[in-house]
Amino acid sequence: MKAKREALISLFTAMREQKVDEDIIELLMIINSIRGIYTTSSCSGRIGILEEPYLGAKPLSRWLLKKHFPITFEEAKQSLKFAKEGFLFLKSQPPILHIVAENFEIAKRIHEIGLFSGFKYTTFKAVNSGKVLVEINGTEYLTTPLGKDGKILVSDEYLKFTVNLGNTMLNRAKSKLPRLKENFRELKDKLGEDELFWEVKNKIWK
Amino acid sequence: MKAKREALISLFTAMREQKVDEDIIELLMIINSIRGIYTTSSCSGRIGILEEPYLGAKPLSRWLLKKHFPITFEEAKQSLKFAKEGFLFLKSQPPILHIVAENFEIAKRIHEIGLFSGFKYTTFKAVNSGKVLVEINGTEYLTTPLGKDGKILVSDEYLKFTVNLGNTMLNRAKSKLPRLKENFRELKDKLGEDELFWEVKNKIWK
Repeated sequence: MKAKREALISLFTAMREQKVDEDIIELLMIINSIRGIYTTSSCSGRIGILEEPYLGAKPLSRWLLKKHFPITFEEAKQSLKFAKEGFLFLKSQPPILHIVAENFEIAKRIHEIGLFSGFKYTTFKAVNSGKVLVEINGTEYLTTPLGKDGKILVSDEYLKFTVNLGNTMLNRAKSKLPRLKENFRELKDKLGEDELFWEVKNKIWK
Repeated sequence: MKAKREALISLFTAMREQKVDEDIIELLMIINSIRGIYTTSSCSGRIGILEEPYLGAKPLSRWLLKKHFPITFEEAKQSLKFAKEGFLFLKSQPPILHIVAENFEIAKRIHEIGLFSGFKYTTFKAVNSGKVLVEINGTEYLTTPLGKDGKILVSDEYLKFTVNLGNTMLNRAKSKLPRLKENFRELKDKLGEDELFWEVKNKIWK
């Protein structure tokens, strides 16, 4: 697992390049400013149309449409015109955060915060030389196949239905973010502020 | 977390009542006969049609069709006739196992076994007074909405397509079970056999 300094440098560099989801930047700033913990990756939740050249070919997949907020039927329909080959899916995914804790006691607090904030798939993902990687994750996953090899197998009525369902799930999952932020604010009161956060932030982000 | 004796009693009682998925009984017998570990729940992977009265209403959901092996288009089509109200989904889910380890060192070995056997969502799910619950889980999840309030919104062609996709994902996920079994056999050679397993088995199962 990355050390905190390294993780902070990556984060602020990504922010400078506008590669961090805007609607969780405030949350990320709170978490990373807490002593003893830091994020290594995050997504604020997303919905879109994904083309997978063959099943399970995650690294070779390509998004025809990807947003961190609800999409419209028209956007979805339009994006399908760019389908080429492989499986087409409408995907709705909840927020996900990877947080490293410098010891197990802190990891357990983060795990509790995730669960108490409504992220029911929060787990300890990995443990390495005392450090623990906690994954905060929701259960609101939708994977709707839409067609294959450029051919769309669903009607407009169905596409509207599943886009609407995906949007609802996304909104529901994202609605838990304010609670999560509040709970990390409380954790900060207990664990205190990390000077390293400000040191790196002032160098890169200003 | 349940103690091992209690967990074994539940398991063999469930087996006697034919409530345990047959195709993983051998795997469960190997795991539970290992000293220091035991299962608290399991599913060998399944596919079916689920009706959710409203979104996220998991406890109130009802399976119109549920199998631990591939289903046919006809079975799926037939089961949809029993739809009443709420959302209809075709669901394909990989095998999932909850395994308690009596200490963290053993939990790490189980975690490794899960990942090395191809179950990429293997995590430490909970930690409690020294015991660790490891979840062995795959990534092959499919959730296809099919309609709402008794109304089917997909064509036969599409239903065939998504049933086929779900079956493929189920087969792929289940194909990792023999590897998992082999790896637990090796773990048994290292950790040794648990007499408690035979004691409880002989009492309940014979």
